[in-house]
Amino acid sequence: MRQLGERAKAASRVLAGARSSVKDDALVNAAAELVDRADQILEANAADLAASDQAGVAPTIQDRLRLTEGRIAAMAAGLEEVAAHPDPLGGVAAGWTRPNGLRISQVVVPLGVVAVIYENRPNVTADAAGLCLKSGNAALLRGSSAALRSNQAIAAAIRSGIGEAGLPEDCLVLVEDVRRESAVELMKLRGLIDCLVPRGGPDLIASVLENATVPYVIDGDGNCHVYVDAAADLDMALAITVNAKTQRPSVCNAAESLLVHRKVAAEFLPRVAKALDAEGVEMVGDPAARALVPEMGEATDADFSKEFLDLKISVAVVDDLDSAIAHITRHGSGHTEAIITTDLKAAERFAREVDAAAVMVNASTRFTDGEQFGFGAEIGISTQKLHARGPMGLKQLTTLKYVVHGDGQIRA
Amino acid sequence: MRQLGERAKAASRVLAGARSSVKDDALVNAAAELVDRADQILEANAADLAASDQAGVAPTIQDRLRLTEGRIAAMAAGLEEVAAHPDPLGGVAAGWTRPNGLRISQVVVPLGVVAVIYENRPNVTADAAGLCLKSGNAALLRGSSAALRSNQAIAAAIRSGIGEAGLPEDCLVLVEDVRRESAVELMKLRGLIDCLVPRGGPDLIASVLENATVPYVIDGDGNCHVYVDAAADLDMALAITVNAKTQRPSVCNAAESLLVHRKVAAEFLPRVAKALDAEGVEMVGDPAARALVPEMGEATDADFSKEFLDLKISVAVVDDLDSAIAHITRHGSGHTEAIITTDLKAAERFAREVDAAAVMVNASTRFTDGEQFGFGAEIGISTQKLHARGPMGLKQLTTLKYVVHGDGQIRA
Repeated sequence: MRQLGERAKAASRVLAGARSSVKDDALVNAAAELVDRADQILEANAADLAASDQAGVAPTIQDRLRLTEGRIAAMAAGLEEVAAHPDPLGGVAAGWTRPNGLRISQVVVPLGVVAVIYENRPNVTADAAGLCLKSGNAALLRGSSAALRSNQAIAAAIRSGIGEAGLPEDCLVLVEDVRRESAVELMKLRGLIDCLVPRGGPDLIASVLENATVPYVIDGDGNCHVYVDAAADLDMALAITVNAKTQRPSVCNAAESLLVHRKVAAEFLPRVAKALDAEGVEMVGDPAARALVPEMGEATDADFSKEFLDLKISVAVVDDLDSAIAHITRHGSGHTEAIITTDLKAAERFAREVDAAAVMVNASTRFTDGEQFGFGAEIGISTQKLHARGPMGLKQLTTLKYVVHGDGQIRA
Repeated sequence: MRQLGERAKAASRVLAGARSSVKDDALVNAAAELVDRADQILEANAADLAASDQAGVAPTIQDRLRLTEGRIAAMAAGLEEVAAHPDPLGGVAAGWTRPNGLRISQVVVPLGVVAVIYENRPNVTADAAGLCLKSGNAALLRGSSAALRSNQAIAAAIRSGIGEAGLPEDCLVLVEDVRRESAVELMKLRGLIDCLVPRGGPDLIASVLENATVPYVIDGDGNCHVYVDAAADLDMALAITVNAKTQRPSVCNAAESLLVHRKVAAEFLPRVAKALDAEGVEMVGDPAARALVPEMGEATDADFSKEFLDLKISVAVVDDLDSAIAHITRHGSGHTEAIITTDLKAAERFAREVDAAAVMVNASTRFTDGEQFGFGAEIGISTQKLHARGPMGLKQLTTLKYVVHGDGQIRA
């Protein structure tokens, strides 16, 4: 594992000095190689699928694993899109001159080696490699065992594309040892990995917190709330609640909990229950919510802290804005929280007092996303406060370096 | 410990909504309380000193522990200075509108609870509390056992000042349990601590890497180099080398290693050896350096990776700029690296290729410092690349929150 890290580190030093045009060539070449090798990639993927079928892997997981010509074309298009983005490096974030004449500037530079641990989707191999390459970072990627053959075929294609542009192929290093222990070994490559992005469930996050000695950014749970205020436009609230819950329930920015102000609960809850029911959503609620919608199941305290990632939502009636904020403070995971209101003061207080990566006023929680924010692709969504908070695009894969120019200054 | 964290967390929520003027009042009140209670603080300090004397603690450590009326006045002045700084919060770091009309802004907000683990200097209690308060963060501070009584007296004074301004006294919570285990407990208060800054030696850093589940910023070693290029102004090189090594040898931005280009080694090394010797500096070198300065001891490979924090320096003669950069890549700790040269190309390559928080061109390594950079006081100097790199001032104690305004947008 250390050897893989050293290969990536060595490549990162060359990559850090590469011009934008060379990196973009590498990305475009890699896209072409993916398309050229589609047959080989699909063959490898078929072998992965056959093995997981034999192992009795659930169909939804197999679906994530499955590649098609269309999915390969999408990966290639993704690399070309990243190539077309402006280079996030080389800018000067700030600069000033001190009274003693020292000229200080803060230049935007790559992190070095970015490691990503991810699950079954093989397209993450291409997406992560593309973002890392564009931002001048070598990528050290570890996918799941179930996707190993697919990832190998994809990585081989991308590495060729990188090599054709005259850059070291080790700008992408795939970890082919997919034992559980290898992930932990990876987390301990301090000095070789500059940033680890773990993309996975609570078990992976817990393992990172326990084992990692390398710097990391947590892409954590999204227990996102929609709070329907007393002054909400209830048609808007209905549309946003249904969208936030059902448009793609398996992702972290989907809503998991609905809070409704007491004043509008009697009018809103039966309406939203009907709309959610029509979409197949199971509702569990507190006593006040259940009094208004008797079909609703009972919500335990644990339900209010749970990220269902499914067509299920917890519901509570709250006395006022304070209670809504207190509920979110207690149960939220700091991802995305939405308020629906026409009351300026309520909107301002909610935006100020709710402690989350993103606060939405009159918009769906589903918008917390690199693409939706205009960053292009994202390597994850950070729920931590240090370094990156919210969607992580190219900029979040860079760091700053102070360059100080003097003419012989010494300290007195 | 959890209870202390919860108290700080609760206070942080109130503090996050406090106006600048209230926080500044608290800082000014705290400064006045420190001066008013100087006798009590000195008494507590005398008890700490007596105990450490009895325990046979080294005089240099006792010196760090010792308070005087002057040192208390300096702490108070530090709090007043922080009060006079502009508030780092409330700004909008970026804002844009998406094609669908969503208005996205990134607002500067406090982290929440900042924990600091530190060693013997009791003034860190006041400095850290001041920086945290100004940046809207509750401070959870754990000093050393040797300084407990002093820290208690200082914290009591500051807490009073905070309370007088109408803010919760728990904006500063001092951890009075100074057993070794309590530091580890602190490192595991995930959900309560938003950022841990460990200020201490390699043992503390190792413990953080092993035990911490809270987010942290590493204030690590400074194995700083001065590289004297073939095209250096040798008078400047001499002044900078002596300054970087001797002006305050016990701090992380002091130089620990001198690299000299082969072309100027015969002229420069005997001169610098004489000047360093006059300052009482012990030199250890590689064979080429020792051939030119025979009095020099032999440097082991480990010496080149060592942060002496003392009047000692390792010396190597390098063949060219590439060798200098390779040496720094191998032995450096990513803190501060300096080049002395009149050659533009050499300066540019060094600044670009050396991977460190700060690169100095023709200036002393000693300038990597919050005060010297113009940030005011610093809570530490980060040697990591995520979140903060280099001196951490008020700005580095903040984070960003996305606030997104819509008028009913949902995702298609």
